[in-house]
Amino acid sequence: MVQATRIEHDLVGDKEVPADAYYGVHTVRGVENFAITGSTIARFPDLIAALAAVKQAAAQANRDLGLLPPDIAGAIIGACEEIRAGRFTEQFVVDPVQGGAGTSTNMNANEVIANRALEVLGHPRGRYDVIHPIDHVNLGQSTNDVYPTAVRLALVTSVRRLGDSLGALATAFAEKATEFGDVLKMGRTQLQDAVPMTLGQEFTTYAVMIEEDRQRLTEAAALLLECNLGGTAIGTGINGHPGYAELACAYLAELSGEPVRPAGDFIEATQDCGAFVQLSGVLKRVAVKLSKTCNDLRLTSSGPTTGLGEINLPPVQAGSSIMPGKVNPVIPEVVNQVAFEVIGNDLTVTMAAEAGQLQLNAFEPVIAYSLLRSLAHLRAACDTLATRCVLGITANRQHLHDSVHRSIGLVTALAPHIGYTASTALARQALATGRTVRDLTAEAGLLSAGQLDMLLRPETLTGHSARPSTAATP
Amino acid sequence: MVQATRIEHDLVGDKEVPADAYYGVHTVRGVENFAITGSTIARFPDLIAALAAVKQAAAQANRDLGLLPPDIAGAIIGACEEIRAGRFTEQFVVDPVQGGAGTSTNMNANEVIANRALEVLGHPRGRYDVIHPIDHVNLGQSTNDVYPTAVRLALVTSVRRLGDSLGALATAFAEKATEFGDVLKMGRTQLQDAVPMTLGQEFTTYAVMIEEDRQRLTEAAALLLECNLGGTAIGTGINGHPGYAELACAYLAELSGEPVRPAGDFIEATQDCGAFVQLSGVLKRVAVKLSKTCNDLRLTSSGPTTGLGEINLPPVQAGSSIMPGKVNPVIPEVVNQVAFEVIGNDLTVTMAAEAGQLQLNAFEPVIAYSLLRSLAHLRAACDTLATRCVLGITANRQHLHDSVHRSIGLVTALAPHIGYTASTALARQALATGRTVRDLTAEAGLLSAGQLDMLLRPETLTGHSARPSTAATP
Amino acid sequence: MVQATRIEHDLVGDKEVPADAYYGVHTVRGVENFAITGSTIARFPDLIAALAAVKQAAAQANRDLGLLPPDIAGAIIGACEEIRAGRFTEQFVVDPVQGGAGTSTNMNANEVIANRALEVLGHPRGRYDVIHPIDHVNLGQSTNDVYPTAVRLALVTSVRRLGDSLGALATAFAEKATEFGDVLKMGRTQLQDAVPMTLGQEFTTYAVMIEEDRQRLTEAAALLLECNLGGTAIGTGINGHPGYAELACAYLAELSGEPVRPAGDFIEATQDCGAFVQLSGVLKRVAVKLSKTCNDLRLTSSGPTTGLGEINLPPVQAGSSIMPGKVNPVIPEVVNQVAFEVIGNDLTVTMAAEAGQLQLNAFEPVIAYSLLRSLAHLRAACDTLATRCVLGITANRQHLHDSVHRSIGLVTALAPHIGYTASTALARQALATGRTVRDLTAEAGLLSAGQLDMLLRPETLTGHSARPSTAATP
Amino acid sequence: MVQATRIEHDLVGDKEVPADAYYGVHTVRGVENFAITGSTIARFPDLIAALAAVKQAAAQANRDLGLLPPDIAGAIIGACEEIRAGRFTEQFVVDPVQGGAGTSTNMNANEVIANRALEVLGHPRGRYDVIHPIDHVNLGQSTNDVYPTAVRLALVTSVRRLGDSLGALATAFAEKATEFGDVLKMGRTQLQDAVPMTLGQEFTTYAVMIEEDRQRLTEAAALLLECNLGGTAIGTGINGHPGYAELACAYLAELSGEPVRPAGDFIEATQDCGAFVQLSGVLKRVAVKLSKTCNDLRLTSSGPTTGLGEINLPPVQAGSSIMPGKVNPVIPEVVNQVAFEVIGNDLTVTMAAEAGQLQLNAFEPVIAYSLLRSLAHLRAACDTLATRCVLGITANRQHLHDSVHRSIGLVTALAPHIGYTASTALARQALATGRTVRDLTAEAGLLSAGQLDMLLRPETLTGHSARPSTAATP
Repeated sequence: MVQATRIEHDLVGDKEVPADAYYGVHTVRGVENFAITGSTIARFPDLIAALAAVKQAAAQANRDLGLLPPDIAGAIIGACEEIRAGRFTEQFVVDPVQGGAGTSTNMNANEVIANRALEVLGHPRGRYDVIHPIDHVNLGQSTNDVYPTAVRLALVTSVRRLGDSLGALATAFAEKATEFGDVLKMGRTQLQDAVPMTLGQEFTTYAVMIEEDRQRLTEAAALLLECNLGGTAIGTGINGHPGYAELACAYLAELSGEPVRPAGDFIEATQDCGAFVQLSGVLKRVAVKLSKTCNDLRLTSSGPTTGLGEINLPPVQAGSSIMPGKVNPVIPEVVNQVAFEVIGNDLTVTMAAEAGQLQLNAFEPVIAYSLLRSLAHLRAACDTLATRCVLGITANRQHLHDSVHRSIGLVTALAPHIGYTASTALARQALATGRTVRDLTAEAGLLSAGQLDMLLRPETLTGHSARPSTAATP
Repeated sequence: MVQATRIEHDLVGDKEVPADAYYGVHTVRGVENFAITGSTIARFPDLIAALAAVKQAAAQANRDLGLLPPDIAGAIIGACEEIRAGRFTEQFVVDPVQGGAGTSTNMNANEVIANRALEVLGHPRGRYDVIHPIDHVNLGQSTNDVYPTAVRLALVTSVRRLGDSLGALATAFAEKATEFGDVLKMGRTQLQDAVPMTLGQEFTTYAVMIEEDRQRLTEAAALLLECNLGGTAIGTGINGHPGYAELACAYLAELSGEPVRPAGDFIEATQDCGAFVQLSGVLKRVAVKLSKTCNDLRLTSSGPTTGLGEINLPPVQAGSSIMPGKVNPVIPEVVNQVAFEVIGNDLTVTMAAEAGQLQLNAFEPVIAYSLLRSLAHLRAACDTLATRCVLGITANRQHLHDSVHRSIGLVTALAPHIGYTASTALARQALATGRTVRDLTAEAGLLSAGQLDMLLRPETLTGHSARPSTAATP
Repeated sequence: MVQATRIEHDLVGDKEVPADAYYGVHTVRGVENFAITGSTIARFPDLIAALAAVKQAAAQANRDLGLLPPDIAGAIIGACEEIRAGRFTEQFVVDPVQGGAGTSTNMNANEVIANRALEVLGHPRGRYDVIHPIDHVNLGQSTNDVYPTAVRLALVTSVRRLGDSLGALATAFAEKATEFGDVLKMGRTQLQDAVPMTLGQEFTTYAVMIEEDRQRLTEAAALLLECNLGGTAIGTGINGHPGYAELACAYLAELSGEPVRPAGDFIEATQDCGAFVQLSGVLKRVAVKLSKTCNDLRLTSSGPTTGLGEINLPPVQAGSSIMPGKVNPVIPEVVNQVAFEVIGNDLTVTMAAEAGQLQLNAFEPVIAYSLLRSLAHLRAACDTLATRCVLGITANRQHLHDSVHRSIGLVTALAPHIGYTASTALARQALATGRTVRDLTAEAGLLSAGQLDMLLRPETLTGHSARPSTAATP
Repeated sequence: MVQATRIEHDLVGDKEVPADAYYGVHTVRGVENFAITGSTIARFPDLIAALAAVKQAAAQANRDLGLLPPDIAGAIIGACEEIRAGRFTEQFVVDPVQGGAGTSTNMNANEVIANRALEVLGHPRGRYDVIHPIDHVNLGQSTNDVYPTAVRLALVTSVRRLGDSLGALATAFAEKATEFGDVLKMGRTQLQDAVPMTLGQEFTTYAVMIEEDRQRLTEAAALLLECNLGGTAIGTGINGHPGYAELACAYLAELSGEPVRPAGDFIEATQDCGAFVQLSGVLKRVAVKLSKTCNDLRLTSSGPTTGLGEINLPPVQAGSSIMPGKVNPVIPEVVNQVAFEVIGNDLTVTMAAEAGQLQLNAFEPVIAYSLLRSLAHLRAACDTLATRCVLGITANRQHLHDSVHRSIGLVTALAPHIGYTASTALARQALATGRTVRDLTAEAGLLSAGQLDMLLRPETLTGHSARPSTAATP
């Protein structure tokens, strides 16, 4: 069966376009030129919605300024609203990794909006003499201001989503911290027994870390709210209406619900990728901390016989096809891997940002692709970690209790009272004999049973850190 | 409509599986536990085929060793052959980024093969008492030897494909080098005029570089051909038949057509990711060179008026919605971005490899995911670059000719004859007046017209590099 | 000649120490154990000063709390003040890259301070029964709170210095921007002619970028001001006096002049490297932008004959031993290299941060080493760039003027008046004939000479971007 | 006191040079222009020796070709030999991180050699009319062939040294493997108990890994032996004598003892950094494996009470100022940090290589700086690890023995005989009751004592991996 087509035309020549496609010749060129990842920008709904919001804001501004006839403006605005509501997503068919600084993505949007607007007004697709993808939908715009603005808005939306997931993860850790508040365990530095703490304190730490990361993310997102919409080609605003930038930006803020604002210097803003690099750096920070946290969970749940065996992660699948009964920490493991991916993506972003030249960075598509994937994967990782792992963790209370009392680390608490030299000797003796520091101390008559009771009380051993953490109890 | 299901059971408990699914409970757990990337391992057909080849080789070895009844072995082997032929790919539904060191991928294969084998023998799905995913399909195997072996084989296949694409790209550059063999141009060091060369020499360089990279890739692939099949859980070969490793490996070599061989030390081979890191490093090298090449193409084609304007890239799409007639180097730009992505992926691989602990690296899934994507994207980038850009490049011969004769760089060729001091003075004078070095030299009576003709002949200026490069003409 | 020694003792046994050394046995062990980089922590004076400030603050707090006799406290405080004034720096002899989470650095400080304090009180070195490096100088402290606190303070000091240098560099660009305010040039996107702008606008962009980076640095430094002093071993404050943390921190703020404050959760703060990763990410951002800026400078100064030739960098050395008269952009080139180094260091920091385990990150020494080097090298790079390059840049005004008027990019300014189709045709004609867009437009009668004058005025072409940038005029 | 000076001259103007300096004006400019790292190229003696060897080979070739008078050639050759013997190293005063693609380093060598040659012939420094740094010492050379050749040679030398240290480290691990050959322990995958192995097998693995890395290093070094000496400015060999390249290269091979050979395509070789990127990738691989090995050592030596406690690292310094008796794994920790640094350096190398443009990579200085530091630090790390840690490791034999017999992992060995289902049940029962798998199996009458003895023999449990590894016993 031959697919029905229509003919469209561009600088390169004539080109067949599927008759029922809302996209047009520029999109088809883009699809042919960039067949890299096997996926499309439709994979990133936040980006499609942000693009449509930018196009709608521009149309509303152009309408108010008398640059776009009300009927055409209305049709364009209606099409944008439909796209923002999730329709026509499958018409966004260009590869997210593309040359041309996002031109194919922008043209994909221009063409889909134009053809949908034409359809609503009762015209066939391709009647660009009535509504033109460039002259009307892209009026007063350039890829170089539209694309970065849409990417920034999409990133902000995705950051908010990640923030929610981080919040839920922090809450999960905080809940466990409360549950484990009375479980004494040995703290470790450099993997060697250090001094006692509670398991609650350990879990509180994770909650605090994650909440701090969330704050950093919010700060990084704030930098993305500066946009260069109205700067057109290179930020000089050539061919733009003097009132357009303020108006379009205000409409965009209204549509998105985000306090988008014009950048202070449009030329700088057009070429600058600083806010992307900053966000990527913060995502790397989040990844580093999540990875460290999962390393800890895997370490303290190691065992069951020959590991640390402090906590148990909930079993979520069989661990081995050859070893009966084996259960593995698969959820932390997948989070580690997402972290490694995010850190790799940060490098991609860094290199792409460094490669910008003169008045534009042509490599923003791979920056957007990397950041949107990092955000989505991190979010999935946080959700998975919270619901499939953290909330089901249990503590081996007896084992933890015993290990504290067996540990030579307790000697630190006695050192201020019996001296550093005697303490060192006691520690060595305990290690050699396998007896407890407490018993040896009592036996040697260095401290009375009462003194030992007091010095080795959990409250005494772990008490000083008690600065209330607002972060941990959100 | 309610989907029909069957009940399967694992260590965690009972679980509904879609009635018509070839996969089973372990796969369903994997799908639920790892919802990270939104894609599945079916995205990597080379991996699916490699997995099936490993399973088939294992079944053939087990059959020969009398460990697997012939009818069951036959059914398993038949199912593997179907999968290798591209059937049932859609049944491989687990996320490529997964915890468990690849257990979910292995179990997905075990279950699909078992159920297809059951079907062929006339049994319903789930009749694991007849053919069991673990006891039969996974017999004598562990995820820890099957998965790395399959990943290695898939990588080798993908490397071969990339090698072909690199070869075609080198040929494209070599063809252009021949076409441009007589086009004189100024060579540049540090972006400053240096001494003349031909455009053919410049393009030969790209061909030579790419061919060298191809050789390095082949070497890196050779390291992947060492496998630990037969090492089972940690490389000690526990529960394995003494003759199994040699036999399974020999079958795998036969099935794959690749000279797969057993590693020298199975325990080391089970935990080692060195060959992955090495391959990743070579892919990074390929990316670095491709990126440099594309940077050069973008630079020498800059213009049309205010750039270097030495060559023209074929226009493949309109460059701008706001600037009429603008054409951009979109193909090199997308290749640059793929390079940045590959370099980022290398970091992911590095971190995952470093994170291995004791007898296993649990993070091989993200290593496989990163490398397979890098290979696929690089291949697409090379194909795109060759066919949509390099083969259509034209030279601005007149402009290049004029620029050589206008350049003060020519003075270098005269320096051995008129001295360094006089040469420097001439260069400065030429720069100040805009006159040519040749005219000023003749005018000053430093050299005769005949001497200048000879010294400034293209052959003289560019001749010494003529070591025949076997690499450039493959 | 035999060097005179004294014998000191530690957990490992007896050890000879040079008789006149202020450091002691722990330092000597550290020197022997860690012979990696060939340098010492004395290379980082900000770190030595910060260490001494922390030790002094601790001594003052301990004195006030009655934990340290006034005479001993006084001697310790005096020694710290001397070190902060730059004395005894050569006594800090341990390698900055060291195992032990900074213990060797902390002990080096403890020993130097103890022995100097002993000396001032008239005792020979090694009389630790009088003033003990641990019992007195390190009283109430642990490496795990002292070292991170000192590193953070040293980083803040270094960030302030870098901020000053960035400010001076921004000012240099802003001065040039004023000088070049009336120089029209072609803006470029994707290395292709785009639309006109002024060279002043281009240089303003660099100033704005740098000032933004400076703000981000200041924000990152603020995160470093949270310290865990008083948390002792793991943040629980074991063996610490309840009033110590607040008091020591207040003294540290007074001594350093920086608003150091206690962290909200000491356990989290003890293990957390988030603020280091964040700072490193911002330094990476600074590096990316500096590198992009230097890439632009090298590109626009390319030539002299066959490059873009827009600006001239001041010659600072001969460029070539073989090519007479060649001058190279060596200053931007060295800045690029520093940027690459900083980006590499960021990866080192990232990996070290990710590798932290449980209650401590043992790899802070390499984090400190990497960050302090990045800060110092970036500062040197900025100073060099400002004074040896930017301030001496000149513009090739005539060439820039001509290139604008020859460029087909001017057609964009006419497009709103003559239409996109006619504009495209004109651009193609101009490119083919080498004639100017203006002439062809006039000739075709599309616009009058007066209209063309108006549309092609520099103010019209470049005017819209004029949002006053506070950053650019500091 | 005023320092005596002499005046020298270059393209920039007159310049004072310290009267007794062997270096001259170009070096002084370099020192002034590049004050970045605070160190000098003298820090890399291998580089100074390689530079002198290249200069000597060039002089010998030029002498043979009749281009350099015998007396001048002789004096230059003599000076080079002195430098190669380690004299005048302190005269190499330029910063290793420099703009100009190594010109300052090349000129530093040219000037020191010229002035030393002048001195030997009885002339004062600066008498360049007699022996000229460029016309004589640099005859037929360009920084662009001399510098990369010297860097490559220096890297080869450093790689050989690192190879020796890796060999010694592998031997240390192999010795321990022999010592621990009969020590049974539990192998672990994903930090969970897997199946038994011997501690000897675990240590053999480290030896094998390191030997494999050493082979990869040797291969990477082989790629560095291709040089572009004779290619002069851009590889076309302009101004070079036709016989020079072969001859100079042959002399260089003779002087260095390394099979240096001319590259196949000099233009490609002049701009290509592929061999540097490849070496850096292999160093990264070495770092990854060393880091993984040290992670394992730190993990298995964790304790003493609440860790895995399998092995003991020799104590080399006191671990804590606050915790008496604490000993930390400081040697593995410093090796981890070196690994992180090397991985960061690899990124620096990657970025610098990618940034090359057209006929030259101007960023080779930072590539050389990064690689030479990585090599030196890795070597120090290996030596430290072997001598201060590995050779002193002891095993906790009883604890390891007990842990195997307590572990449920033993059930895997019984599974082929009692079935997967019964095995799983036994494992769960063992875990719940704390009793051993052996006892429960015997009690349930599933296997006889004799059968259990046979199945649980160490040889049976660990035997299959016994492929003799040539690598482990070098």
